[in-house]
Amino acid sequence: MPMPTDHELFDLGDVVLQRGATLRGATLAYKTYGTLNADKSNVIVHPTWYSAWHDANEWTIGKGRACDPDEYFIVVPNQLNNGLSSSPSNTPPPYDGPNFPPVTFYDQVEVQHRLLTQKWGIESIELVLGSSMGAAQTYQWAVSHPEMVKRAAPIVGAPVTSEHNQVFLKSLRAALTADPVFNGGRYSPGALPTVGLRAFARIYAGWGLSQAFYRQREYRRIGFSSLEDFLVGFWEGFWLDDRDPNNLLGMLWTWEHGDVVQTPGLDGDTEAALRSIRCPLLAMPGKTDLYFPPEDEEWASQFIPNGEVRVIPSIYGHFAGLGNNPADNDFIDGALKELLHRPA
Amino acid sequence: MPMPTDHELFDLGDVVLQRGATLRGATLAYKTYGTLNADKSNVIVHPTWYSAWHDANEWTIGKGRACDPDEYFIVVPNQLNNGLSSSPSNTPPPYDGPNFPPVTFYDQVEVQHRLLTQKWGIESIELVLGSSMGAAQTYQWAVSHPEMVKRAAPIVGAPVTSEHNQVFLKSLRAALTADPVFNGGRYSPGALPTVGLRAFARIYAGWGLSQAFYRQREYRRIGFSSLEDFLVGFWEGFWLDDRDPNNLLGMLWTWEHGDVVQTPGLDGDTEAALRSIRCPLLAMPGKTDLYFPPEDEEWASQFIPNGEVRVIPSIYGHFAGLGNNPADNDFIDGALKELLHRPA
Repeated sequence: MPMPTDHELFDLGDVVLQRGATLRGATLAYKTYGTLNADKSNVIVHPTWYSAWHDANEWTIGKGRACDPDEYFIVVPNQLNNGLSSSPSNTPPPYDGPNFPPVTFYDQVEVQHRLLTQKWGIESIELVLGSSMGAAQTYQWAVSHPEMVKRAAPIVGAPVTSEHNQVFLKSLRAALTADPVFNGGRYSPGALPTVGLRAFARIYAGWGLSQAFYRQREYRRIGFSSLEDFLVGFWEGFWLDDRDPNNLLGMLWTWEHGDVVQTPGLDGDTEAALRSIRCPLLAMPGKTDLYFPPEDEEWASQFIPNGEVRVIPSIYGHFAGLGNNPADNDFIDGALKELLHRPA
Repeated sequence: MPMPTDHELFDLGDVVLQRGATLRGATLAYKTYGTLNADKSNVIVHPTWYSAWHDANEWTIGKGRACDPDEYFIVVPNQLNNGLSSSPSNTPPPYDGPNFPPVTFYDQVEVQHRLLTQKWGIESIELVLGSSMGAAQTYQWAVSHPEMVKRAAPIVGAPVTSEHNQVFLKSLRAALTADPVFNGGRYSPGALPTVGLRAFARIYAGWGLSQAFYRQREYRRIGFSSLEDFLVGFWEGFWLDDRDPNNLLGMLWTWEHGDVVQTPGLDGDTEAALRSIRCPLLAMPGKTDLYFPPEDEEWASQFIPNGEVRVIPSIYGHFAGLGNNPADNDFIDGALKELLHRPA
């Protein structure tokens, strides 16, 4: 699936990023589903995951689902670095390509907050949800704006990127940048480091799904004829499809440095940041997720006053939370409905 | 630790390999511990793991341990491709470097069988044990020579390399070969593809140990001050230390294609191959091993008439079976002693 074009753009103006750079004339790409009601009380925010665009979240949205556009106004902001919002691939010098500045999850949420408050005057959000890096943004929303967020549902993601997860990310970076065509990020758009991207794809293939997924050759059920077909047809195809390497490394940096402790005023105390979350927060890790294992969510949940963990009983590994398996989607949808019906 | 030099060499002559090539003037490097008794009834065979030399097995050997050289004659054969036995790095043309032919686990065991029978006239083995790729060789010994092997103890390894495990291996190969210095294996010994090897190291770092190992920062207990120190000081150091890339890819091929079904006469039936194992076989997977998870051993064990699985209760992931953690070593040593005391 190539990069979608059915989004709108919000002019952020100048964005002073947490690590120091100012991104001038920055843009946030977003798509909305449904209609904002008169008292602005039907808002759902659903940030995007690594490498994804807004369309990757559409599996959660639809008539009869928890995120029903007949009832809710659902905003899907594209994270900075994903190629639609301001990113290495679409920013002019001096912050173009490999010169694009580092963006934290705190920054991601702040620009989304600007969109909601400045464009629509929204003051309250019924639900923030998101998968993977979207889950990290969900946690960050609950920490940064406890006065706004009424419910939170982070899916297959965490408030702190664990060291083991970081090792996975560092291996992706090392493989991608080993390709000489990458050339410190100064490749030309027509000549991408495809050897590095294919290595990146093979690494991701091992991490994204579980041992049991491969043991049961589950890839056959989703349209791939063999292991090799899955590795090339799905995985290499995915990363070679409009995924700009500098964008990927930009998002990787955000992910690698993920920690709600970076919220200003929380004094470098992760546990205090988690304790500051006021709303009900229902975390849904995947039982067989190799890089966001349920144990990390269970650790975090103990500090969140209204925290709960509900493990997705799936062999789809990390992909349990990305909309690929109908049974997992139903599990998540059921939990979201229950959460939305709770008083907040 | 650089490549050891305290081994002996056995001249294998010409070795006809299973996939067709004949390796002429091949050599098997080995080391022995203890003394062969008069009736040749005290033999233990302990093949090596991926990238390892014989010295990596010495944690299992010692006075008072299961593999006690006062009692047993312990033979540690270095696998082909490991740099001491015939390998890409030490073989003259036409089978030098990237031209070295593929070697199966069946081949590995056959050359070890030659050493035992031709050099010492050994007809019976009290115990074959091995970790990781050594475990695969252990299974293969029990399938290839059921008349000789009285007990088998595969540790953190399997009789069949699972598809998930293959994905991990393919990612290692893709990262190493993405380095242009690799040049199809035609690098010069003085100019190794170190960028590729460092990417290889980062991938391995994520797989070799468990989520819990990193969560508990266990690397601090084994002498590393930080995550970065562990990744560079241990992991990059390990792979940059006398590990020849063509040798690594040769061993990788053996591992990736591991399956006892390749035993001639077993008609392509993995379950039949496992059923043919006569001796008691005690498999010891690691509870948190990411690429040889206990489920794979439990699957295999159901077909082995005298098969048993005892899971190492460790957070050391795959490394639970490589001699790095005293508690795991004790667990394994205790199980080996029990196995050796069983009548066979």
